[in-house]
Amino acid sequence: MRHLTLITTGGTIEKTFDESSGELANRRSIVRRMLARLRLADTKLRIIELMSKDSLHMTDADRGAIVEAVRAEAGPERLATETTGVVILHGTDTLAVTGERILREIPAPRVPIILTGAMRPYEMTRSDALQNLTESVFAAGVLGPGVYCVSHGRALAFPGVVKERDLARFVKVTA
Amino acid sequence: MRHLTLITTGGTIEKTFDESSGELANRRSIVRRMLARLRLADTKLRIIELMSKDSLHMTDADRGAIVEAVRAEAGPERLATETTGVVILHGTDTLAVTGERILREIPAPRVPIILTGAMRPYEMTRSDALQNLTESVFAAGVLGPGVYCVSHGRALAFPGVVKERDLARFVKVTA
Amino acid sequence: MRHLTLITTGGTIEKTFDESSGELANRRSIVRRMLARLRLADTKLRIIELMSKDSLHMTDADRGAIVEAVRAEAGPERLATETTGVVILHGTDTLAVTGERILREIPAPRVPIILTGAMRPYEMTRSDALQNLTESVFAAGVLGPGVYCVSHGRALAFPGVVKERDLARFVKVTA
Amino acid sequence: MRHLTLITTGGTIEKTFDESSGELANRRSIVRRMLARLRLADTKLRIIELMSKDSLHMTDADRGAIVEAVRAEAGPERLATETTGVVILHGTDTLAVTGERILREIPAPRVPIILTGAMRPYEMTRSDALQNLTESVFAAGVLGPGVYCVSHGRALAFPGVVKERDLARFVKVTA
Repeated sequence: MRHLTLITTGGTIEKTFDESSGELANRRSIVRRMLARLRLADTKLRIIELMSKDSLHMTDADRGAIVEAVRAEAGPERLATETTGVVILHGTDTLAVTGERILREIPAPRVPIILTGAMRPYEMTRSDALQNLTESVFAAGVLGPGVYCVSHGRALAFPGVVKERDLARFVKVTA
Repeated sequence: MRHLTLITTGGTIEKTFDESSGELANRRSIVRRMLARLRLADTKLRIIELMSKDSLHMTDADRGAIVEAVRAEAGPERLATETTGVVILHGTDTLAVTGERILREIPAPRVPIILTGAMRPYEMTRSDALQNLTESVFAAGVLGPGVYCVSHGRALAFPGVVKERDLARFVKVTA
Repeated sequence: MRHLTLITTGGTIEKTFDESSGELANRRSIVRRMLARLRLADTKLRIIELMSKDSLHMTDADRGAIVEAVRAEAGPERLATETTGVVILHGTDTLAVTGERILREIPAPRVPIILTGAMRPYEMTRSDALQNLTESVFAAGVLGPGVYCVSHGRALAFPGVVKERDLARFVKVTA
Repeated sequence: MRHLTLITTGGTIEKTFDESSGELANRRSIVRRMLARLRLADTKLRIIELMSKDSLHMTDADRGAIVEAVRAEAGPERLATETTGVVILHGTDTLAVTGERILREIPAPRVPIILTGAMRPYEMTRSDALQNLTESVFAAGVLGPGVYCVSHGRALAFPGVVKERDLARFVKVTA
């Protein structure tokens, strides 16, 4: 039995349409609706709805809160938790900033820590949201300890992951 | 055989997601993609992509252009056209303004003129776009000459149609 | 306010996938799930789940039961009902047989009686089910008294409607 | 750059609806339509449409053909191929039989060989097809050499995988 912790922070992946304003916004987490479309055998999911923000508006304090939530689940000391993997939903614009900081502050995590997001909101046709969530939940069960960006068929290990804006994807840069 | 003319002007119904800006916008008509999901027997469709605007930004000149396009298809004189009905995709915010103006300038149309739109973009889950387009195309084949707002299961005849913003629907007000 | 009665009898439109047998079957009505995807203003719906059958297996007694259900809602005498329209979900293979019988037994209905179905089950991609249900609910609000087959953008009045199997659609034959 | 080979054999995952018979059947591979819904970075896919069969009707010779197709891509000798992983779409009823045979005949594959399928056809609502394909393509990039069944969030390594029919899932039995 896998015990995954899913931390939601907002981002494009969770944006929904506000019919009165006519705009997309991060109002609350919709991860439960996404998960309802997946079949997951032998998996227990714990969901932590941490914040609901466009990642362009995330502050250092926000990232600090993410690090602390991750540490509680995946830090080197075995705490009162049996978590076997952590998945973080995050806006793609600053996903790499958060990934680097998690790795800096938790350099030896006990389990895999997966950051993911989407180029199109879950609620839109042709969205990559469910694909990326599917891959991330799967990855949290098969990858070794570390901090990763998972999307579009690939797992990229931090450090050195950056968003390549023109191609709407993540790449690994080697120093 | 029915000969319908479909005039697109933009509005929420046709808004698409721009992955680089992360926002919804009226870039171009997506009516052909919507129509590809319908099965229409004995129906010929002529599509006029007139403009692609949020209806809050429509000017008097824009509305004039819509009236002229409608008049060419549905005006009282039988022109070189065999159109049996007209459907106009329009933003809901000022749909009623355009409907009243069409009726004022073409008080005796030859065929039914249907205005429709959507509260959620076609490209979003739980959108009412395809429902409203389906109803409008059907209505153009069964209603008599006149100017109508068709959506959410109903046909409301102009004059006297207004958007009831709180309930996200159209109602008929009787003077 | 419209008061529609929706009578479900099964047919392809309501077939669902049985994961243990791997086949499609009429198990129970799924019309409530279909209706949940529509926005209907000023409409009260009464649902009668009459039977759940492939229309190739319908007996004369089944059709008799449909006629009686329709008569109770739409017969010439105003009974203890305020129904303003009736929609019947039906398999397309013998939809025309049932339509002719309803017209024969209720030649002067008080309200429109709409028969509809689908070529592909509601639960399949590219299904025409929701389109046909949308059109039928709309038609029940705008057509005059009579018995109709509504689908694929059109309303065909009985008598004289037949399924044109090769083209997967209904046509009107004139004697 | 990953070079994946996708071998299609049919099964529930690829069944489509035949409008004239009203039944589901394996007519041809629909894997290209499924893949069109995924975004895959740095991935080259080679598709081999080997057969289109309900796995209950697979013969020993069919399984032999699958083994030979896999051996050409993933056998121990590096042939004229740069394949880095193999994904096989297969009916779930006898997927485990084929998996055991592949492992017996290719005990030391060069790359990961993933078998997957679905409990509901891709073309039906609430299908697990796209989830399982997503997981399998991802798995082919991160798992080590071996033969696996991938679905519903998990990778199970052969030998010892069986379908637990009542729960509609695969489990690993330890001898």
